[in-house]
Order: sequence, then structure tokens, then C-alpha cells
Amino acid sequence: MKYRLLAPGPTPVPDRVLAKMSLPIKHHRTPYFADVFKACQVGLKWLFQTEYDVLTTVTSGTGIFEAAFRSLLSPNDKVITIGGGKFGERWGDMAEQLGLTPIRVDVPWGQCVDVKSVAQKLKENPDVRAVVCVASETSTGVRHDYEGLGEIIAENPECIFMVDAITALGVWDISPERDNIDVLVSGSQKGMMLPPGLGFASVSDKAWTMSEGRARCAGYYLDLHKERKALAKGQSAYTSGVTLMIGLEEVLSMMQREGLQNIFERHARLARATRVGMQALNLKLLAEKPSDSVTSVWNPEGVRDDAVNKGLRDRANLTIAGGQEALKGKIFRVAHLGHYDELDVLTGLSAIEIVLKQEGYSNFTPGASIAAASPILEPGFAEGRHV
Amino acid sequence: MKYRLLAPGPTPVPDRVLAKMSLPIKHHRTPYFADVFKACQVGLKWLFQTEYDVLTTVTSGTGIFEAAFRSLLSPNDKVITIGGGKFGERWGDMAEQLGLTPIRVDVPWGQCVDVKSVAQKLKENPDVRAVVCVASETSTGVRHDYEGLGEIIAENPECIFMVDAITALGVWDISPERDNIDVLVSGSQKGMMLPPGLGFASVSDKAWTMSEGRARCAGYYLDLHKERKALAKGQSAYTSGVTLMIGLEEVLSMMQREGLQNIFERHARLARATRVGMQALNLKLLAEKPSDSVTSVWNPEGVRDDAVNKGLRDRANLTIAGGQEALKGKIFRVAHLGHYDELDVLTGLSAIEIVLKQEGYSNFTPGASIAAASPILEPGFAEGRHV
Repeated sequence: MKYRLLAPGPTPVPDRVLAKMSLPIKHHRTPYFADVFKACQVGLKWLFQTEYDVLTTVTSGTGIFEAAFRSLLSPNDKVITIGGGKFGERWGDMAEQLGLTPIRVDVPWGQCVDVKSVAQKLKENPDVRAVVCVASETSTGVRHDYEGLGEIIAENPECIFMVDAITALGVWDISPERDNIDVLVSGSQKGMMLPPGLGFASVSDKAWTMSEGRARCAGYYLDLHKERKALAKGQSAYTSGVTLMIGLEEVLSMMQREGLQNIFERHARLARATRVGMQALNLKLLAEKPSDSVTSVWNPEGVRDDAVNKGLRDRANLTIAGGQEALKGKIFRVAHLGHYDELDVLTGLSAIEIVLKQEGYSNFTPGASIAAASPILEPGFAEGRHV
Repeated sequence: MKYRLLAPGPTPVPDRVLAKMSLPIKHHRTPYFADVFKACQVGLKWLFQTEYDVLTTVTSGTGIFEAAFRSLLSPNDKVITIGGGKFGERWGDMAEQLGLTPIRVDVPWGQCVDVKSVAQKLKENPDVRAVVCVASETSTGVRHDYEGLGEIIAENPECIFMVDAITALGVWDISPERDNIDVLVSGSQKGMMLPPGLGFASVSDKAWTMSEGRARCAGYYLDLHKERKALAKGQSAYTSGVTLMIGLEEVLSMMQREGLQNIFERHARLARATRVGMQALNLKLLAEKPSDSVTSVWNPEGVRDDAVNKGLRDRANLTIAGGQEALKGKIFRVAHLGHYDELDVLTGLSAIEIVLKQEGYSNFTPGASIAAASPILEPGFAEGRHV
């Protein structure tokens, strides 16, 4: 079978972007590249829906998150981090390793953070300098209530709000200013439809001001202040990821043609169709409140370990994702973010029906997922929507 | 005119590598990518001529240098850094910013480090934990005597030798074990003929052992210990730079077909032809001992600022490099590393002759650089050498 990719990152890269990136490389200090860089800046602000600076590093999303911690906080600063999945816990581990003092809010995997419990922790620790939340927890498919947290944190002039929007940006309507997000982090290989290799972060004036004149967790390569200074001159602090930036310009222009509202609606449609399709197979969803990026499904009774994703991999050459860490062998995850459309959802559901059957699960009517998902997807069958 | 790139990085990417990287992206946790990753490991060890682990990060060369400092040294550790150019000085600045204690050896830009002066500093500071040297200083085109330094440092069981081989690897014969290099760092966009975005480092057993049980300059993303652990399982610690790794496999196979000895001879030939060609135009070279990666040339009397590289850029659509920092406006630099051949040298020299004339410098016989360079390049005109 042909190779198909329905995992939450890297996500498929559009053909036109691959083609653009395969043109001969250009030097980063040329008028040509200065134009690319500028177009990317304009496009990134559009995509982030922000007037803040949007910085780019040659790292993954994790790398630019480290840069944000190092650049905006001081050693021993208290930060509230929120568990509930692999990435939420990662930011707590990172804070600890960087010499910050994480105050961890535990959340059972699959559930949402309770805003009140964070408010309580903030009250008990008025010297907390940052709260870190994952908007879309990729390991569970949960959408956390970052809007609720943002409102509380905005009232505190000495505390910033850092949001991992790695699988939220370009998927649903998230905005630094409106949602009170001081640092909004993303990466290239998710909703942005590029190969891995670039990290992005918007930084609020509040965050820049708060960090001024305070000691920092010294970084050299990972230094957002340096990147900000270079950006003011239309450059990056270190050699830019030239090829990916050229792809980024193309991706942003594709997204602008589709329009933000259409992008958000498409993702909402695909996500709802996937969830409804799974439920039509009598499968149970994991997420208390689901993200529109990825749908996590409990293995049904009798289907063990990674049978679904391994079956798809080995017999259909199709990559979805399994569970990670605490959820390893218990769930499978199907992504629907980035360069992904209505027919991809139907393809994924049909393949999953077959593999479930092969694995001995038959508590569904064949075709049920397609029957349930199709009416939801039908609005996508429209003229003027082709990319 | 067509675009041509003769700058010391990013360097041209071979067509076949661009084509390979433009294939649809694959997920990093697939059997396909596991094979790519494995082939890259084997190929990297071959290219580095080492049995040590070769680690890869999604960063530039500067990023993996920071990772090496953070992973292998402890706060306040004394390190000897060697100036003499933008990159030599960068490692001193980085050491300082990371909370290490740099002991800086000043070297006039364009000259080579004096091994004896470093030996003296080592004697005066027996607690130095690392010496950092640039093999090929890209900003001046100087080749430093890292072999001489390596011999001295090897005698000291408590001090490691870190070499920036960013524009040396894949250009001339440099080997961690033979040259006593504990950490040999490179990047993707130089001799390795890839777009920017990957950093590479080989790490000796001595360096691993020395760092065991000692405090580190805490890093999370930039952590070679974590990468080493992941490597033992055939993986990267964070999302791999999938597309670049696929390109890397192709590049390494091209290099293996050409053979290390041929690669080194080709670079030596191109470099010598470039130097001799410039001298035939009565131009003066900057480097006391030249690197085979890049040739730095003093602006001749009457030719001001960046006239040569700007003239080439604006009138011939050809990118070379100008001087940086202390040498800004005083020199121009022509690269000959990576995917670069005999006819590229002649093209570059011919274009430079024309632009020099346009800028008012005429102290040469037209065609003199070509006449001088051609006999040196002729051995490259041979069967079985085409890529």
C-alpha cells in the first residue's frame, strides 16, 4: 500500500511546499532571503493573530520552550506547571532541570486542568513568576482551559502565562492578546505543515518588561533577547533555517488563501467527524474535553497493546500514534491537523475498521464510522475550497 | 544572471539531495526512518573517521556547541578559548555566558594560534578543564594548529579538547582519535552539503568519563547525555529533523562513492587554485596559514568596503562573503567547500576579475587568474570523478 501519515507530527507537507523547498538553496544574507524573512514575519503575525514579536529558532518546539524559560525567567523563579500528559509534565521537568522551582499541578491523564486549583496555588504562592499550560496536550488529545487560566494570570502584573500551542496553532482560534498569553510557543511540523526544525514563539511586552534587568538562566544559542534584537534588523541571530523558511513562506501563503476562519472550521469538522466515527464503532474516547488536533481512543476490550497502530503500520503502511508513557498500549491516537482533509478522515476510519476486525473486535456494523462521519464532513465538499 | 553561491555556508545542496528531501515526509517512528537513522549513524562515523558516538541535534553548529559545553563541563570550570576570528571569539563569549570561566588567548585576526602560548596558559592553570579551538576559522580563512594543541592536551587526563570543525569536516583529513579531539563539532550546511538545521558532535570516552558525577550547566533540550541514551536505542531524544536526516543519508552515500581521500584532494586542489588565482591578480591573501574551505583576500588599494561582494551580488547574482566584525569592509571571502568543483573555481575567478575591473582595480592582466589556476585544477578533469 502507499504510505499514509495520520500522526500528530510530523504531519504531511503539501506538495507545493516540498517542491519549493527543493529549489537550489540560497544564502541567508541576500536580498532574496531578506524578502522571504520579511514575508514570514508578516505571515507569522497574521497566523499568531498578534502584534507581538514572533521569534523563530532552529530547534524543535521543545528547544524554543527552553529558550523562553532561559530568556524570560531567573534562576530559582517559581513556575506553576500543569501535568495531565507527556508534554505538560515535560515543562515541569524542564523547569526543574533549568534551575527554576516548579510547582506542579497534577492532572490525571485525559482530564482537563481545574482552573480553580491553579488559582488556589497562585494565591498560596504570590511570588510565582510564570504559569505554563499546554493548549492541546498531544499525548492525550485534551484541550485545556488556557482561556480561563489566562484571565486569572492577566490580573497579576508579576506573573506571565506561557502556553504550549504546538498542536493548537493553525488548528483553532488562539490569540496571544485576546487570550492573555505572554509566550505562545509552536513548532513547524504540526499545524504549520512543514518538516520539523523550526520553533516559534510570540512574546508579550509584559514578558519582555518583566525580564528586564533580572538575572537569567544564561543561554547563548537559546536566547530570545538576541533573536529579538536580530529580528529588529530583519535577521536571525544565527544561521537561519533557510530551506524551512522558504517552505514557511509558501505555507503561510497557502494558509492565507484558505483563510483563518476556514482553517479553524475545517479542523473542527475533521475532529468532530473523527470522534463521531469512533463512537459509531462503539469505541470510547479518552479526552474529557477534546482537542481538534488529535483524537485519542481507548483500545476496545480484547484488543491489546499497540495492536491498532501496529496493524495499520504493518498491514496498511499507515502511521497513526499509540499511547505514550502512562497510556502506552492502552490507547491509539489519530491526528487531523495540518494538511489534512475530509477524505483523509474517511480513509483513516475505513482502515481502522478493517484492522479492528482483524484484531478480533467486531462490536460494530461495518461502515458505521463512515456513515456517521460523512454528514459532518459534507460541508467540506464545496467549490473554492481546494488547495 | 543565474544565481550562484560561493559563500562558506549555507553551501550548495546537490540536486539529488534536494530531490530526495522533496519526497513526502515520513514519520520518525517508522521502520523506514529507523533505517535512515541507522544508515546516518554508520555514515557519520565513517565521515568523522571515529569509533566515538556521533550525536545529532536539531540546531545549528552553535547550538550543539552550547550543548557540548552544558553537557560536559560544570559551572565555573576554566576553559581556554582561542580568539583570532569571529568564531574563536564566539566560543569565549559562549563560555562566559554559560557561567564557565574562559581564559582567552588573543590571536590577531588572520594569524594562527601559537601552540606554545596555549601550553604556557595550561601550565599556569593546571585546573583548566577544556581547551577550545577552531580548526578552520571561517571569518578569516585560517587553519589553526589543532593537531599541535591536541598532542599537549592529550597528556592531561583532566582536560578535554573541543574543536569547532564546522568548516573543516568533510574538507580535509581530521580525525577525533588520531588528532586527540574529545569533542569534534560540525554543522549540516558546510562541507556536508545540506541545508542548515542539524548540528553534529563526536564525543570521546574521556569526555564522557570526565563529566560523570559532576555538576552540569543544566540543559534540557541541549543535552548530549540524553542524546547518547536515545542513540543507543537508535533514536533521537526529541523529534528528529526527518527531512534533513533523509538528505543526510543521501549526502553520506554520495561522499562514500567519492571517497574520503578524493574529497580531501579535491578541496585541497580547489583551495590552492583559488589562492594562486588571486595572487595572479596581484591580490594579497589574509590567512597566515590558509584553510582549504575559504580564501580571504584583502581589498586591493582603491577598492573600498564591500565593493567586490556587493558588485558580484548586484551585477552577477553571485554570493560570496565579505569581512566580518574587525575585518568588515576590508576583505572578501570566496568559499570552496562542499558541493563545489573545478569549474566553479574558474567561474568565480572570472567573475571577480570583471568586478575588480569595474571597481577601478586594473593591476592585473585579464585572464591571469584563470591561467594560473587552470594547471592546478586540471587533475580534476578525469574520468570516474563525476557526481
